[in-house]
Amino acid sequence: MDITSQVNTGWMLTATVAVTLMLPGLALYYGGLSRTKNILNTMMIVLGGFAVTAVLWVLYGYGLTLGDSVGGVGLIGDPTGLFGIQSLLGAETPEGAVPGILIAVFQLIFAGLTVGIIGGAVEGRMKFSSWLVFAGLWATLVYFPVAHWVFAFDSADGSVTGGWIANSLHAIDFAGGTAVHMNAGVAALVLAIFLGKRRHFPNVGRPGNLPIAIVGGGLLLVGWYGFNGGSSGGINESAGVAVTNTLVAACAGLLGWLVVERIVRKAATSLGAISGVLGGLVGITPAANSVSPIGAIIIGLLSGVVAFATLGLKERFGYDDALDAVAIHMFPGIFGTLAIGFLADPASPAGAQGIFFGGDASLLGTQAIAIVAVFAYTAVVTALISWVLSKTIGLRVGDGIEIMGLDTTLHAETAYDLDDVRS
Amino acid sequence: MDITSQVNTGWMLTATVAVTLMLPGLALYYGGLSRTKNILNTMMIVLGGFAVTAVLWVLYGYGLTLGDSVGGVGLIGDPTGLFGIQSLLGAETPEGAVPGILIAVFQLIFAGLTVGIIGGAVEGRMKFSSWLVFAGLWATLVYFPVAHWVFAFDSADGSVTGGWIANSLHAIDFAGGTAVHMNAGVAALVLAIFLGKRRHFPNVGRPGNLPIAIVGGGLLLVGWYGFNGGSSGGINESAGVAVTNTLVAACAGLLGWLVVERIVRKAATSLGAISGVLGGLVGITPAANSVSPIGAIIIGLLSGVVAFATLGLKERFGYDDALDAVAIHMFPGIFGTLAIGFLADPASPAGAQGIFFGGDASLLGTQAIAIVAVFAYTAVVTALISWVLSKTIGLRVGDGIEIMGLDTTLHAETAYDLDDVRS
Amino acid sequence: MDITSQVNTGWMLTATVAVTLMLPGLALYYGGLSRTKNILNTMMIVLGGFAVTAVLWVLYGYGLTLGDSVGGVGLIGDPTGLFGIQSLLGAETPEGAVPGILIAVFQLIFAGLTVGIIGGAVEGRMKFSSWLVFAGLWATLVYFPVAHWVFAFDSADGSVTGGWIANSLHAIDFAGGTAVHMNAGVAALVLAIFLGKRRHFPNVGRPGNLPIAIVGGGLLLVGWYGFNGGSSGGINESAGVAVTNTLVAACAGLLGWLVVERIVRKAATSLGAISGVLGGLVGITPAANSVSPIGAIIIGLLSGVVAFATLGLKERFGYDDALDAVAIHMFPGIFGTLAIGFLADPASPAGAQGIFFGGDASLLGTQAIAIVAVFAYTAVVTALISWVLSKTIGLRVGDGIEIMGLDTTLHAETAYDLDDVRS
Repeated sequence: MDITSQVNTGWMLTATVAVTLMLPGLALYYGGLSRTKNILNTMMIVLGGFAVTAVLWVLYGYGLTLGDSVGGVGLIGDPTGLFGIQSLLGAETPEGAVPGILIAVFQLIFAGLTVGIIGGAVEGRMKFSSWLVFAGLWATLVYFPVAHWVFAFDSADGSVTGGWIANSLHAIDFAGGTAVHMNAGVAALVLAIFLGKRRHFPNVGRPGNLPIAIVGGGLLLVGWYGFNGGSSGGINESAGVAVTNTLVAACAGLLGWLVVERIVRKAATSLGAISGVLGGLVGITPAANSVSPIGAIIIGLLSGVVAFATLGLKERFGYDDALDAVAIHMFPGIFGTLAIGFLADPASPAGAQGIFFGGDASLLGTQAIAIVAVFAYTAVVTALISWVLSKTIGLRVGDGIEIMGLDTTLHAETAYDLDDVRS
Repeated sequence: MDITSQVNTGWMLTATVAVTLMLPGLALYYGGLSRTKNILNTMMIVLGGFAVTAVLWVLYGYGLTLGDSVGGVGLIGDPTGLFGIQSLLGAETPEGAVPGILIAVFQLIFAGLTVGIIGGAVEGRMKFSSWLVFAGLWATLVYFPVAHWVFAFDSADGSVTGGWIANSLHAIDFAGGTAVHMNAGVAALVLAIFLGKRRHFPNVGRPGNLPIAIVGGGLLLVGWYGFNGGSSGGINESAGVAVTNTLVAACAGLLGWLVVERIVRKAATSLGAISGVLGGLVGITPAANSVSPIGAIIIGLLSGVVAFATLGLKERFGYDDALDAVAIHMFPGIFGTLAIGFLADPASPAGAQGIFFGGDASLLGTQAIAIVAVFAYTAVVTALISWVLSKTIGLRVGDGIEIMGLDTTLHAETAYDLDDVRS
Repeated sequence: MDITSQVNTGWMLTATVAVTLMLPGLALYYGGLSRTKNILNTMMIVLGGFAVTAVLWVLYGYGLTLGDSVGGVGLIGDPTGLFGIQSLLGAETPEGAVPGILIAVFQLIFAGLTVGIIGGAVEGRMKFSSWLVFAGLWATLVYFPVAHWVFAFDSADGSVTGGWIANSLHAIDFAGGTAVHMNAGVAALVLAIFLGKRRHFPNVGRPGNLPIAIVGGGLLLVGWYGFNGGSSGGINESAGVAVTNTLVAACAGLLGWLVVERIVRKAATSLGAISGVLGGLVGITPAANSVSPIGAIIIGLLSGVVAFATLGLKERFGYDDALDAVAIHMFPGIFGTLAIGFLADPASPAGAQGIFFGGDASLLGTQAIAIVAVFAYTAVVTALISWVLSKTIGLRVGDGIEIMGLDTTLHAETAYDLDDVRS
């Protein structure tokens, strides 16, 4: 590796370390929000879904996502020749580039986390084995194609063709407002509908362990630096700007949520604080290198408000998105992707021009097309997967198991044994 | 960016990731030490104070702290022209330097954490809204000026003038013994006095969740590498030495506290272990690049002892510093800053010469002046802020709220719902 | 430092940050698995053992491990001249190299963690003071020599001679399958035998707090990137491959354990998930730069199976390895080290040729010799240390203390005070 390659590789290694914090982060965040009788099951859903996706990624997911586009049409990568990512081992690293295997593992983590986000919808009622099958099918049929559309860029020398959203539509989605957050959120919505509501929804009890959820939220925040910062692909202006925007959007998201919650519900909650942080982080994800820090504050603030405002939709429309993947990921993901159309600052690394900076509405239109395309594809294919599974192996546990909780029934465990606390 | 800039930027990005671990770390450490009825409120104090500070930092705090000194006298930076740190976007990065926006976000985190440390004083009795107002005022009137004194260095080409402690007094405060730890500790002392004691102080109950406090302590330890190591500003001899001294001082702090605690109180506690670690980390913060690893062990060991020895002062003098920001941050911060006067090793990157290495007492005097100046300024201005707030919006919740706990009353939540553990 | 030095230093700084996550990680993992009455004691065993080792490392451990081999025979380093690692301060960094002090602190963490792993064997019945003495003796008499054998490489210019396993035997142990995991696992086995079983073993109660164990497991996973990735010594092909193999082996380990557990015990547990992850991580540790990602999946999968399969040995043979250091570290450590003999892929950075890739059995034989040598040395010397301590200061607490739990009796604390949860 030449020295520029080494420098860029150093940051991608760091970003890989950081973004992996999001795996325990997501498991603990969702786990802490679950009812105590299901906390372990929820954590295993995140960990198990990630593990299945990781193995499939090595086998063929990397090829489907980042392989040369089949027929050059930008719909799906070619997995042949990349089986087992074996060919990346010992491959020459082009001048200034990052070794292919490091890109592969960084993007693997995106895939596994996206699957995990969906797991927020299924608390307390989904068969664990069906979840693992769903995870593998969804990664294969939804994530790998959509990620190809959004994250696969044409190679500079034209030898490798990427996805249509990145290269033909030219929508701006820096780190996954569409491919990751909206994608997972839409899938969560569809799966929640197919699964059905938990018993007594919406009166299903309270989060079992908020401090553990805050541990998870903290790891998600720090990991998000790797998620957004690493999407710069190396050490460049984008990395510093993305990291800065990520943090200030998170802080603004917290304030946005709390202010509205205090006004509407008369109490600012810690669950709201962490939800606002995550809403802000989701919102800034597509926009991290295309807006200024003031733009990031605006996006973060409004993303917190958007997440709060859409939280109640599940009760109104009757889908039981238990841990709010729709409100926290889908809506702020859409909002952030659209906000680029207004707030893109030509002085930022992406150099795009939003409406508030004298641009016309074409960027906004481009962003909207990307959203509609991903939304439609994900909704249809996720519904298909859910329908097939519900008709074959079944999605849902029996009533007795749901009442007892999944930890003791499916996993033969309880989260705590505190009986001797006072002895 | 040239290659040297890239290399230095890589480490500052990493340090930014690491130091952000201290945000959940501090929230969880303080939260776990709180009584169970206040754990969520305590965490929100850390998170909310950070978020307010972050937004103010972007708006004008960066300018007040690192802007060109007004009148060139080293008392406060000029925020005009840096509003919204907008001008840092797309600015040319000087050869070998780190992009300004990355320095801005790294220092933002210092500001937000310093505010958070003060939150240790207020457990269980402060209005949340008053805390957020206090945070904003204190950041503006105390932290930004003091950080300007200590952290704003004159630019090499003389075009930007920094603060008086860094550039005229030439005190050594590598990562914030005065500007961060003593500063926050003094503010905690003053605020605790204005707030008054909790009911039945000092018999107020025990920490609610020590394992969560240890999660927090662990994240603080790892984040401290970013805090101290990142204060090197790039990849140089200081970074490696600072990281090494940080870890060994933490370990020595643990041993120092536990040995004394075992002798004095007949039991070495886990709370003592983590307190000793933090005491050692605070003590080494100003000295991380000016002493040898043996010096770091000595500072760490004695900082652990200092923290333990000053723990009881709150009972003797009747200030209710609930989670011990004074004993853990103020006293070891002072001790570490003074210890440089004795232990500064000319072979270390800072190259200063302490009394034990043949130096004269002038360095010790310089350090003492910095301590006295920061102490006096912070004490007076914090008292002023506290007095104004107590006479206007009020600092303290009512008795009923204090008895019930702040989680259910202010935030409409409880930390746990363990009712179904045994079902 | 020249620019190549800086680049490599950047990654080693990052790896040091990451690997330190394993300290709280191990404390929380073991703590969460302990019975509630001993959770704090278990965490202090990890933290205290680390702190003692850290101080000894600075004083003479670094010299014993990485100093010039005494007599050039590769058995032990020369600590004279390296006392207090003082000589590393301000030393010239050779071209392209990483500063010696950073290597010293990185390897310090390996030493401290290896001691901590042993702590898994002693839950609920060992005197804390005896543990600290054991830690110091074991680090000195076992870890420092064995790490010299395995981790001390001859210097390129021949001026410094390293250990016999690394330089004469030429066994492949990238990051410590023998020196760390098997080493600690064997010591845990021996110490468990000398300590004796807990009362009513194997009916000793359940883990007290699995979510906290999962926090710990998550930090261990992320920290492992630093452990394995940092063993590359800088930015090179090995770093990216090691990081990739580490993650996929962890995921495969999870799947391997869960599948077998589901078949054999009819329930896939969250404790199994995290145990499988750790088993996979241990298995890939020696092999991280010598196999392909497919090889890593195979090693991870089978390491999970090996860990599960050896879990029951403690009941059959009657050694009370309370938190399973033997099943999770010793057996997968041995398995991974041997697996290199079969799966070493010439296309990987190490370039070795396993039996499945057309190599002969000589590599396998080499690996086996390293295992036998470390196993025998560790077993004998650990037994000696344990015997001496049992005959002098005593290893075990009294029955009353064991029944009450070590937290209240030795440390005058309880982990939780949840009495006001419902108030």
